[in-house]
Amino acid sequence: MDFLKLIDHHRSIRKYKAKLVPEEILSKILEASLRASSSGNMQTFSIIVTKNKTLKKRLYKLHFEQDMVLQAPLLLTFCSDFHRMRLWLKESQAPDNFDNFMSFMIGAIDAILASQNAALSAENEGLGICYLGTTLANCHKIGKVLNLPENVVPVVGFTMGYPDEEPSLRDRLPLKGVVHYETYNNYAQENIHEIYAEREKNGFERYMSVPHLREKILDSQVKNLAQIYTKIKYTKASHIKYSRTVLDCLKDQNFFNQ
Amino acid sequence: MDFLKLIDHHRSIRKYKAKLVPEEILSKILEASLRASSSGNMQTFSIIVTKNKTLKKRLYKLHFEQDMVLQAPLLLTFCSDFHRMRLWLKESQAPDNFDNFMSFMIGAIDAILASQNAALSAENEGLGICYLGTTLANCHKIGKVLNLPENVVPVVGFTMGYPDEEPSLRDRLPLKGVVHYETYNNYAQENIHEIYAEREKNGFERYMSVPHLREKILDSQVKNLAQIYTKIKYTKASHIKYSRTVLDCLKDQNFFNQ
Repeated sequence: MDFLKLIDHHRSIRKYKAKLVPEEILSKILEASLRASSSGNMQTFSIIVTKNKTLKKRLYKLHFEQDMVLQAPLLLTFCSDFHRMRLWLKESQAPDNFDNFMSFMIGAIDAILASQNAALSAENEGLGICYLGTTLANCHKIGKVLNLPENVVPVVGFTMGYPDEEPSLRDRLPLKGVVHYETYNNYAQENIHEIYAEREKNGFERYMSVPHLREKILDSQVKNLAQIYTKIKYTKASHIKYSRTVLDCLKDQNFFNQ
Repeated sequence: MDFLKLIDHHRSIRKYKAKLVPEEILSKILEASLRASSSGNMQTFSIIVTKNKTLKKRLYKLHFEQDMVLQAPLLLTFCSDFHRMRLWLKESQAPDNFDNFMSFMIGAIDAILASQNAALSAENEGLGICYLGTTLANCHKIGKVLNLPENVVPVVGFTMGYPDEEPSLRDRLPLKGVVHYETYNNYAQENIHEIYAEREKNGFERYMSVPHLREKILDSQVKNLAQIYTKIKYTKASHIKYSRTVLDCLKDQNFFNQ
Protein backbone atom coordinates (compact mmCIF):
# COMPACT_ATOMS: atom_id res chain seq x y z
CA MET A 1 0.00 0.00 0.00
CA ASP A 2 1.16 3.56 -0.61
CA PHE A 3 2.86 4.80 2.52
CA LEU A 4 0.83 7.97 3.06
CA LYS A 5 -2.42 6.08 2.41
CA LEU A 6 -1.34 3.57 5.04
CA ILE A 7 -0.71 6.31 7.59
CA ASP A 8 -3.92 8.17 6.71
CA HIS A 9 -5.92 4.98 7.00
CA HIS A 10 -5.07 4.29 10.66
CA ARG A 11 -8.02 3.61 12.97
CA SER A 12 -7.92 1.76 16.27
CA ILE A 13 -9.47 -1.68 15.82
CA ARG A 14 -11.45 -3.02 18.78
CA LYS A 15 -13.16 -6.03 17.13
CA TYR A 16 -11.17 -8.92 15.67
CA LYS A 17 -11.80 -12.05 13.63
CA ALA A 18 -10.85 -15.41 15.15
CA LYS A 19 -8.28 -15.91 12.35
CA LEU A 20 -4.75 -16.33 13.70
CA VAL A 21 -1.77 -14.25 12.57
CA PRO A 22 0.66 -16.48 10.60
CA GLU A 23 4.12 -16.82 12.16
CA GLU A 24 5.90 -15.41 9.10
CA ILE A 25 3.79 -12.25 9.19
CA LEU A 26 4.43 -11.81 12.90
CA SER A 27 8.17 -12.19 12.25
CA LYS A 28 8.10 -9.53 9.52
CA ILE A 29 6.37 -7.13 11.91
CA LEU A 30 8.84 -7.81 14.70
CA GLU A 31 11.84 -7.44 12.36
CA ALA A 32 10.44 -4.08 11.19
CA SER A 33 10.02 -3.04 14.80
CA LEU A 34 13.71 -3.66 15.49
CA ARG A 35 14.76 -1.35 12.63
CA ALA A 36 13.46 1.74 14.46
CA SER A 37 15.92 4.41 15.65
CA SER A 38 17.41 3.66 19.03
CA SER A 39 19.44 5.79 21.42
CA GLY A 40 23.13 4.95 20.87
CA ASN A 41 21.81 1.89 19.01
CA MET A 42 21.51 0.24 22.44
CA GLN A 43 17.98 -1.07 21.66
CA THR A 44 17.03 -1.03 25.31
CA PHE A 45 13.55 -2.41 24.93
CA SER A 46 11.82 -5.78 24.88
CA ILE A 47 8.66 -6.95 23.16
CA ILE A 48 6.45 -9.50 24.90
CA VAL A 49 4.14 -11.35 22.50
CA THR A 50 1.27 -12.92 24.44
CA LYS A 51 -1.08 -15.47 22.84
CA ASN A 52 -1.90 -17.76 25.76
CA LYS A 53 -5.57 -17.47 26.77
CA THR A 54 -5.02 -17.88 30.51
CA LEU A 55 -2.40 -15.13 30.49
CA LYS A 56 -4.61 -12.92 28.34
CA LYS A 57 -7.46 -13.33 30.84
CA ARG A 58 -5.21 -12.07 33.64
CA LEU A 59 -4.01 -9.17 31.49
CA TYR A 60 -7.58 -8.38 30.40
CA LYS A 61 -8.43 -7.50 33.99
CA LEU A 62 -5.40 -5.20 34.22
CA HIS A 63 -6.37 -3.56 30.91
CA PHE A 64 -9.65 -2.44 32.49
CA GLU A 65 -11.58 -5.37 31.01
CA GLN A 66 -11.49 -4.13 27.44
CA ASP A 67 -12.97 -7.02 25.41
CA MET A 68 -10.46 -6.69 22.60
CA VAL A 69 -7.69 -8.01 24.87
CA LEU A 70 -9.51 -11.36 25.05
CA GLN A 71 -10.68 -11.28 21.44
CA ALA A 72 -7.51 -10.32 19.58
CA PRO A 73 -5.22 -13.29 18.87
CA LEU A 74 -2.15 -11.31 19.96
CA LEU A 75 -1.19 -8.79 22.62
CA LEU A 76 2.15 -7.02 22.20
CA THR A 77 3.71 -5.27 25.21
CA PHE A 78 6.71 -2.99 24.63
CA CYS A 79 8.92 -2.48 27.67
CA SER A 80 11.76 -0.17 28.57
CA ASP A 81 14.46 -2.79 29.22
CA PHE A 82 17.93 -2.14 30.65
CA HIS A 83 18.07 -5.57 32.27
CA ARG A 84 19.63 -7.22 29.22
CA MET A 85 22.11 -4.37 28.74
CA ARG A 86 23.13 -4.47 32.40
CA LEU A 87 23.74 -8.25 32.23
CA TRP A 88 26.00 -7.61 29.23
CA LEU A 89 27.84 -4.79 31.05
CA LYS A 90 28.44 -7.07 34.02
CA GLU A 91 29.69 -9.91 31.82
CA SER A 92 32.01 -7.42 30.06
CA GLN A 93 33.48 -5.94 33.26
CA ALA A 94 32.03 -2.54 32.32
CA PRO A 95 31.04 0.00 35.00
CA ASP A 96 27.47 -0.25 36.27
CA ASN A 97 24.88 2.32 35.14
CA PHE A 98 21.33 2.63 33.83
CA ASP A 99 19.45 2.22 37.12
CA ASN A 100 18.10 5.78 37.03
CA PHE A 101 15.18 7.79 35.63
CA MET A 102 17.05 8.95 32.49
CA SER A 103 17.71 5.32 31.61
CA PHE A 104 14.05 4.42 32.02
CA MET A 105 13.15 7.26 29.64
CA ILE A 106 15.77 6.24 27.05
CA GLY A 107 14.39 2.70 27.07
CA ALA A 108 10.81 4.03 26.95
CA ILE A 109 11.57 6.17 23.88
CA ASP A 110 13.21 3.17 22.18
CA ALA A 111 10.18 1.01 23.02
CA ILE A 112 7.66 3.55 21.72
CA LEU A 113 9.51 4.17 18.43
CA ALA A 114 9.74 0.41 17.91
CA SER A 115 6.04 0.00 18.70
CA GLN A 116 5.04 2.50 16.03
CA ASN A 117 7.15 0.68 13.43
CA ALA A 118 5.38 -2.54 14.47
CA ALA A 119 1.93 -0.91 14.39
CA LEU A 120 2.41 0.46 10.86
CA SER A 121 3.92 -2.81 9.64
CA ALA A 122 0.94 -4.70 11.03
CA GLU A 123 -1.46 -2.35 9.25
CA ASN A 124 0.58 -2.81 6.08
CA GLU A 125 -0.17 -6.56 6.35
CA GLY A 126 -3.93 -5.93 6.64
CA LEU A 127 -3.97 -6.34 10.41
CA GLY A 128 -5.55 -3.92 12.87
CA ILE A 129 -4.19 -2.71 16.20
CA CYS A 130 -5.40 -0.73 19.21
CA TYR A 131 -2.98 0.88 21.64
CA LEU A 132 -3.78 0.33 25.33
CA GLY A 133 -3.04 3.29 27.60
CA THR A 134 -3.58 0.92 30.50
CA THR A 135 -0.16 -0.62 29.75
CA LEU A 136 1.54 2.24 31.57
CA ALA A 137 -1.28 3.04 34.01
CA ASN A 138 -1.09 -0.54 35.33
CA CYS A 139 2.59 -1.18 34.58
CA HIS A 140 3.30 -2.61 38.00
CA LYS A 141 0.72 -5.39 37.96
CA ILE A 142 1.18 -6.11 34.24
CA GLY A 143 4.91 -6.46 34.87
CA LYS A 144 4.21 -9.10 37.51
CA VAL A 145 1.98 -11.15 35.18
CA LEU A 146 4.64 -10.92 32.45
CA ASN A 147 7.33 -11.95 34.93
CA LEU A 148 9.51 -8.90 34.26
CA PRO A 149 12.84 -8.71 36.09
CA GLU A 150 14.37 -5.50 37.51
CA ASN A 151 14.98 -2.68 35.02
CA VAL A 152 12.12 -3.77 32.79
CA VAL A 153 8.88 -1.74 32.79
CA PRO A 154 5.90 -1.97 30.35
CA VAL A 155 5.35 1.35 28.55
CA VAL A 156 3.04 0.83 25.56
CA GLY A 157 1.18 -2.11 24.09
CA PHE A 158 -1.49 -3.00 21.61
CA THR A 159 -3.86 -5.75 20.59
CA MET A 160 -3.32 -7.13 17.08
CA GLY A 161 -5.34 -9.27 14.70
CA TYR A 162 -7.52 -9.25 11.58
CA PRO A 163 -10.15 -6.49 11.85
CA ASP A 164 -13.80 -7.41 12.24
CA GLU A 165 -15.04 -3.82 11.99
CA GLU A 166 -14.57 -0.84 9.71
CA PRO A 167 -14.67 2.20 11.98
CA SER A 168 -14.59 5.61 10.35
CA LEU A 169 -11.54 7.83 10.72
CA ARG A 170 -11.30 9.83 13.96
CA ASP A 171 -10.93 13.59 13.66
CA ARG A 172 -7.52 15.13 14.29
CA LEU A 173 -6.65 18.62 15.49
CA PRO A 174 -5.79 21.07 12.68
CA LEU A 175 -2.06 21.51 11.90
CA LYS A 176 -2.11 25.10 13.16
CA GLY A 177 -3.24 23.82 16.55
CA VAL A 178 -0.25 21.49 16.99
CA VAL A 179 2.63 22.88 14.91
CA HIS A 180 4.65 25.93 15.96
CA TYR A 181 7.21 27.66 13.75
CA GLU A 182 10.61 28.66 15.15
CA THR A 183 9.47 28.81 18.80
CA TYR A 184 6.23 28.14 20.70
CA ASN A 185 3.50 30.55 19.61
CA ASN A 186 1.22 30.65 22.58
CA TYR A 187 -2.52 30.33 22.10
CA ALA A 188 -4.87 33.20 22.80
CA GLN A 189 -7.33 31.93 25.41
CA GLU A 190 -10.25 33.34 23.42
CA ASN A 191 -9.22 31.42 20.27
CA ILE A 192 -8.76 28.04 21.91
CA HIS A 193 -12.22 26.76 20.94
CA GLU A 194 -11.32 27.24 17.27
CA ILE A 195 -8.65 24.56 17.54
CA TYR A 196 -11.06 22.14 19.21
CA ALA A 197 -14.16 23.10 17.15
CA GLU A 198 -14.21 19.99 14.91
CA ARG A 199 -13.58 17.73 17.89
CA GLU A 200 -16.29 19.37 20.02
CA LYS A 201 -18.78 18.79 17.24
CA ASN A 202 -18.07 15.05 16.92
CA GLY A 203 -16.65 14.05 20.27
CA PHE A 204 -19.60 14.73 22.57
CA GLU A 205 -21.98 12.70 20.38
CA ARG A 206 -19.44 9.93 20.08
CA TYR A 207 -19.28 9.47 23.84
CA MET A 208 -23.06 9.84 24.21
CA SER A 209 -23.48 6.89 21.84
CA VAL A 210 -21.71 4.51 24.26
CA PRO A 211 -24.45 3.31 26.65
CA HIS A 212 -22.47 3.18 29.95
CA LEU A 213 -20.84 6.54 29.22
CA ARG A 214 -24.15 8.14 28.23
CA GLU A 215 -25.54 7.25 31.64
CA LYS A 216 -22.51 8.71 33.42
CA ILE A 217 -22.63 11.86 31.29
CA LEU A 218 -26.30 12.46 32.08
CA ASP A 219 -25.85 11.64 35.79
CA SER A 220 -22.95 14.04 36.25
CA GLN A 221 -24.51 16.90 34.31
CA VAL A 222 -21.58 17.12 31.96
CA LYS A 223 -22.18 19.86 29.39
CA ASN A 224 -19.36 19.55 26.86
CA LEU A 225 -16.52 17.36 25.60
CA ALA A 226 -13.82 18.97 27.76
CA GLN A 227 -15.90 18.12 30.84
CA ILE A 228 -16.18 14.48 29.68
CA TYR A 229 -12.39 14.35 29.69
CA THR A 230 -11.83 15.51 33.27
CA LYS A 231 -15.15 14.70 34.98
CA ILE A 232 -15.45 11.16 33.58
CA LYS A 233 -12.50 9.81 31.58
CA TYR A 234 -9.40 11.25 33.21
CA THR A 235 -10.17 12.60 36.66
CA LYS A 236 -7.57 14.32 38.79
CA ALA A 237 -7.86 11.55 41.41
CA SER A 238 -7.27 8.77 38.84
CA HIS A 239 -4.29 10.56 37.33
CA ILE A 240 -2.71 11.14 40.73
CA LYS A 241 -3.16 7.43 41.43
CA TYR A 242 -1.56 6.39 38.10
CA SER A 243 1.29 8.87 38.58
CA ARG A 244 2.10 7.30 41.92
CA THR A 245 1.76 3.78 40.49
CA VAL A 246 4.24 4.49 37.72
CA LEU A 247 6.72 6.25 40.02
CA ASP A 248 6.47 3.43 42.58
CA CYS A 249 7.00 0.90 39.79
CA LEU A 250 10.13 2.74 38.63
CA LYS A 251 11.48 2.65 42.20
CA ASP A 252 10.66 -1.04 42.68
CA GLN A 253 12.13 -1.91 39.28
CA ASN A 254 15.47 -0.24 40.10
CA PHE A 255 14.98 2.74 37.78
CA PHE A 256 15.00 5.58 40.30
CA ASN A 257 18.49 5.97 41.79
CA GLN A 258 19.63 9.52 41.14
CA MET B 1 8.58 3.09 -1.91
CA ASP B 2 7.52 -0.29 -0.60
CA PHE B 3 6.75 0.08 3.08
CA LEU B 4 9.05 -2.64 4.42
CA LYS B 5 11.90 -1.44 2.19
CA LEU B 6 11.39 2.02 3.61
CA ILE B 7 11.61 0.73 7.19
CA ASP B 8 14.59 -1.52 6.41
CA HIS B 9 16.39 1.35 4.73
CA HIS B 10 16.49 3.63 7.79
CA ARG B 11 19.88 5.07 8.72
CA SER B 12 20.54 8.18 10.79
CA ILE B 13 21.69 10.97 8.47
CA ARG B 14 24.29 13.35 9.90
CA LYS B 15 25.32 15.22 6.71
CA TYR B 16 22.84 17.28 4.72
CA LYS B 17 22.72 19.15 1.41
CA ALA B 18 21.99 22.89 1.50
CA LYS B 19 18.76 22.25 -0.47
CA LEU B 20 15.69 23.45 1.43
CA VAL B 21 12.65 21.27 2.14
CA PRO B 22 9.65 22.55 0.10
CA GLU B 23 6.71 23.75 2.18
CA GLU B 24 4.29 21.25 0.64
CA ILE B 25 6.55 18.34 1.56
CA LEU B 26 6.92 19.61 5.13
CA SER B 27 3.12 19.90 5.35
CA LYS B 28 2.65 16.31 4.16
CA ILE B 29 5.09 15.10 6.83
CA LEU B 30 3.38 17.09 9.57
CA GLU B 31 -0.09 15.91 8.50
CA ALA B 32 1.15 12.31 8.60
CA SER B 33 2.57 12.94 12.06
CA LEU B 34 -0.85 14.04 13.32
CA ARG B 35 -2.45 10.78 12.16
CA ALA B 36 -0.54 8.72 14.77
CA SER B 37 -2.44 7.02 17.58
CA SER B 38 -3.04 9.28 20.56
CA SER B 39 -4.24 8.54 24.08
CA GLY B 40 -8.00 9.29 24.20
CA ASN B 41 -7.39 11.12 20.91
CA MET B 42 -6.30 14.09 23.05
CA GLN B 43 -3.19 14.70 20.89
CA THR B 44 -1.34 16.22 23.80
CA PHE B 45 1.85 17.07 21.96
CA SER B 46 3.28 19.95 19.99
CA ILE B 47 5.80 20.04 17.16
CA ILE B 48 8.23 22.94 16.97
CA VAL B 49 9.74 23.41 13.49
CA THR B 50 12.91 25.49 13.71
CA LYS B 51 14.59 26.93 10.59
CA ASN B 52 16.01 30.21 11.89
CA LYS B 53 19.82 30.17 11.93
CA THR B 54 20.23 32.21 15.11
CA LEU B 55 17.88 29.92 16.99
CA LYS B 56 19.58 26.84 15.54
CA LYS B 57 22.95 28.14 16.77
CA ARG B 58 21.59 28.38 20.30
CA LEU B 59 20.04 24.91 20.05
CA TYR B 60 23.26 23.50 18.52
CA LYS B 61 25.07 24.26 21.79
CA LEU B 62 22.34 22.48 23.79
CA HIS B 63 22.52 19.50 21.41
CA PHE B 64 26.17 19.00 22.41
CA GLU B 65 27.46 20.84 19.35
CA GLN B 66 26.52 18.15 16.84
CA ASP B 67 27.23 19.76 13.44
CA MET B 68 24.11 18.37 11.82
CA VAL B 69 21.95 20.73 13.93
CA LEU B 70 23.53 23.70 12.12
CA GLN B 71 23.73 21.98 8.76
CA ALA B 72 20.25 20.48 8.41
CA PRO B 73 17.69 22.97 7.08
CA LEU B 74 15.13 21.88 9.69
CA LEU B 75 15.06 20.85 13.32
CA LEU B 76 11.83 19.28 14.62
CA THR B 77 11.21 19.13 18.37
CA PHE B 78 8.31 17.01 19.66
CA CYS B 79 7.02 18.04 23.08
CA SER B 80 4.65 16.54 25.60
CA ASP B 81 2.06 19.35 25.72
CA PHE B 82 -0.87 19.62 28.13
CA HIS B 83 -0.79 23.41 28.05
CA ARG B 84 -3.18 23.64 25.09
CA MET B 85 -5.53 21.02 26.58
CA ARG B 86 -5.57 22.80 29.95
CA LEU B 87 -6.43 26.14 28.30
CA TRP B 88 -9.35 24.39 26.59
CA LEU B 89 -10.48 22.78 29.87
CA LYS B 90 -10.44 26.17 31.57
CA GLU B 91 -12.37 27.82 28.76
CA SER B 92 -14.92 24.96 28.93
CA GLN B 93 -15.42 25.12 32.73
CA ALA B 94 -14.05 21.59 33.04
CA PRO B 95 -12.25 20.43 36.20
CA ASP B 96 -8.49 21.00 36.28
CA ASN B 97 -6.15 18.04 35.75
CA PHE B 98 -3.03 16.95 33.84
CA ASP B 99 -0.39 18.66 36.00
CA ASN B 100 1.11 15.35 37.14
CA PHE B 101 3.66 12.74 36.06
CA MET B 102 1.13 10.44 34.36
CA SER B 103 0.03 13.34 32.18
CA PHE B 104 3.62 14.11 31.19
CA MET B 105 4.04 10.45 30.16
CA ILE B 106 0.79 10.39 28.17
CA GLY B 107 1.90 13.48 26.27
CA ALA B 108 5.39 12.01 25.82
CA ILE B 109 3.99 8.79 24.32
CA ASP B 110 1.79 10.83 21.96
CA ALA B 111 4.79 12.95 20.95
CA ILE B 112 7.04 9.93 20.29
CA LEU B 113 4.44 8.05 18.23
CA ALA B 114 3.86 11.20 16.17
CA SER B 115 7.60 11.69 15.73
CA GLN B 116 8.03 8.22 14.26
CA ASN B 117 5.20 8.83 11.77
CA ALA B 118 6.98 12.05 10.79
CA ALA B 119 10.38 10.35 10.53
CA LEU B 120 9.09 7.60 8.25
CA SER B 121 7.12 10.08 6.13
CA ALA B 122 10.24 12.20 5.74
CA GLU B 123 12.22 9.17 4.60
CA ASN B 124 9.40 8.31 2.21
CA GLU B 125 9.98 11.74 0.61
CA GLY B 126 13.69 11.08 0.15
CA LEU B 127 14.70 13.10 3.20
CA GLY B 128 17.00 11.93 5.97
CA ILE B 129 16.65 12.38 9.72
CA CYS B 130 18.71 11.87 12.85
CA TYR B 131 17.11 11.65 16.29
CA LEU B 132 18.81 13.71 19.00
CA GLY B 133 18.87 12.11 22.46
CA THR B 134 20.00 15.49 23.76
CA THR B 135 16.41 16.73 23.33
CA LEU B 136 15.42 15.09 26.59
CA ALA B 137 18.82 15.26 28.31
CA ASN B 138 18.76 19.06 27.92
CA CYS B 139 14.99 19.53 27.95
CA HIS B 140 15.09 22.36 30.44
CA LYS B 141 17.41 24.68 28.51
CA ILE B 142 15.96 23.71 25.12
CA GLY B 143 12.50 24.53 26.47
CA LYS B 144 13.68 28.01 27.39
CA VAL B 145 15.12 28.68 23.92
CA LEU B 146 11.85 27.43 22.35
CA ASN B 147 9.85 29.62 24.72
CA LEU B 148 7.75 26.73 26.06
CA PRO B 149 5.04 27.57 28.58
CA GLU B 150 4.13 25.43 31.61
CA ASN B 151 3.06 21.84 30.89
CA VAL B 152 5.17 21.66 27.74
CA VAL B 153 8.42 19.63 27.79
CA PRO B 154 10.64 18.57 24.82
CA VAL B 155 10.90 14.77 24.60
CA VAL B 156 12.33 13.78 21.19
CA GLY B 157 13.56 15.66 18.14
CA PHE B 158 15.43 15.20 14.93
CA THR B 159 17.29 17.06 12.23
CA MET B 160 15.77 16.78 8.75
CA GLY B 161 16.95 17.52 5.23
CA TYR B 162 18.25 16.00 2.00
CA PRO B 163 21.03 13.48 2.77
CA ASP B 164 24.58 14.26 1.73
CA GLU B 165 25.93 10.88 2.78
CA GLU B 166 25.07 7.21 2.24
CA PRO B 167 25.95 5.50 5.52
CA SER B 168 25.66 1.72 5.65
CA LEU B 169 22.95 0.10 7.74
CA ARG B 170 23.68 -0.26 11.47
CA ASP B 171 23.48 -3.73 12.94
CA ARG B 172 20.47 -4.62 15.07
CA LEU B 173 20.15 -7.17 17.85
CA PRO B 174 18.74 -10.55 16.74
CA LEU B 175 14.98 -11.07 17.23
CA LYS B 176 15.57 -13.73 19.88
CA GLY B 177 17.48 -11.13 21.94
CA VAL B 178 14.56 -8.69 22.07
CA VAL B 179 11.33 -10.67 21.65
CA HIS B 180 9.84 -12.83 24.41
CA TYR B 181 6.91 -15.20 23.96
CA GLU B 182 4.06 -15.28 26.48
CA THR B 183 6.11 -13.86 29.39
CA TYR B 184 9.68 -12.62 29.88
CA ASN B 185 12.18 -15.42 29.29
CA ASN B 186 15.15 -14.33 31.29
CA TYR B 187 18.63 -14.48 29.76
CA ALA B 188 21.25 -16.90 31.04
CA GLN B 189 24.20 -14.74 32.09
CA GLU B 190 26.58 -17.06 30.23
CA ASN B 191 24.66 -16.68 26.94
CA ILE B 192 24.44 -12.91 26.97
CA HIS B 193 27.44 -12.40 24.67
CA GLU B 194 25.66 -14.40 21.97
CA ILE B 195 22.99 -11.71 21.72
CA TYR B 196 25.59 -8.96 21.45
CA ALA B 197 28.11 -10.90 19.29
CA GLU B 198 27.37 -9.11 15.99
CA ARG B 199 27.40 -5.75 17.72
CA GLU B 200 30.66 -6.43 19.57
CA LYS B 201 32.31 -7.29 16.25
CA ASN B 202 31.30 -4.03 14.53
CA GLY B 203 30.76 -1.58 17.36
CA PHE B 204 34.23 -1.34 18.85
CA GLU B 205 35.84 -0.64 15.47
CA ARG B 206 33.13 1.87 14.66
CA TYR B 207 33.90 3.96 17.74
CA MET B 208 37.68 3.57 17.22
CA SER B 209 37.27 5.12 13.78
CA VAL B 210 36.03 8.43 15.27
CA PRO B 211 39.23 10.40 16.08
CA HIS B 212 38.17 12.09 19.38
CA LEU B 213 36.63 8.84 20.64
CA ARG B 214 39.67 6.78 19.63
CA GLU B 215 41.82 9.02 21.81
CA LYS B 216 39.46 8.66 24.76
CA ILE B 217 39.22 4.89 24.30
CA LEU B 218 43.01 4.49 24.28
CA ASP B 219 43.47 6.90 27.22
CA SER B 220 40.97 5.12 29.43
CA GLN B 221 42.16 1.60 28.62
CA VAL B 222 38.73 0.55 27.46
CA LYS B 223 38.82 -3.07 26.30
CA ASN B 224 35.44 -3.76 24.73
CA LEU B 225 32.22 -2.19 23.42
CA ALA B 226 30.29 -2.51 26.70
CA GLN B 227 33.03 -0.52 28.43
CA ILE B 228 32.77 2.21 25.76
CA TYR B 229 29.11 2.57 26.68
CA THR B 230 29.57 3.14 30.42
CA LYS B 231 33.16 4.43 30.67
CA ILE B 232 32.87 6.96 27.83
CA LYS B 233 29.43 7.47 26.27
CA TYR B 234 26.96 7.08 29.13
CA THR B 235 28.68 7.35 32.50
CA LYS B 236 26.81 6.90 35.75
CA ALA B 237 27.60 10.51 36.70
CA SER B 238 26.21 11.91 33.43
CA HIS B 239 23.05 9.82 33.69
CA ILE B 240 22.45 10.90 37.28
CA LYS B 241 22.82 14.50 36.12
CA TYR B 242 20.36 14.05 33.23
CA SER B 243 17.89 12.22 35.47
CA ARG B 244 17.86 15.16 37.85
CA THR B 245 17.63 17.66 34.99
CA VAL B 246 14.56 15.94 33.57
CA LEU B 247 12.86 15.53 36.95
CA ASP B 248 13.59 19.18 37.85
CA CYS B 249 12.23 20.24 34.48
CA LEU B 250 9.02 18.27 35.11
CA LYS B 251 8.62 20.02 38.48
CA ASP B 252 9.30 23.47 37.06
CA GLN B 253 6.96 22.84 34.13
CA ASN B 254 4.07 21.93 36.43
CA PHE B 255 4.11 18.20 35.64
CA PHE B 256 4.91 16.77 39.06
CA ASN B 257 1.97 17.29 41.42
CA GLN B 258 0.92 13.90 42.74
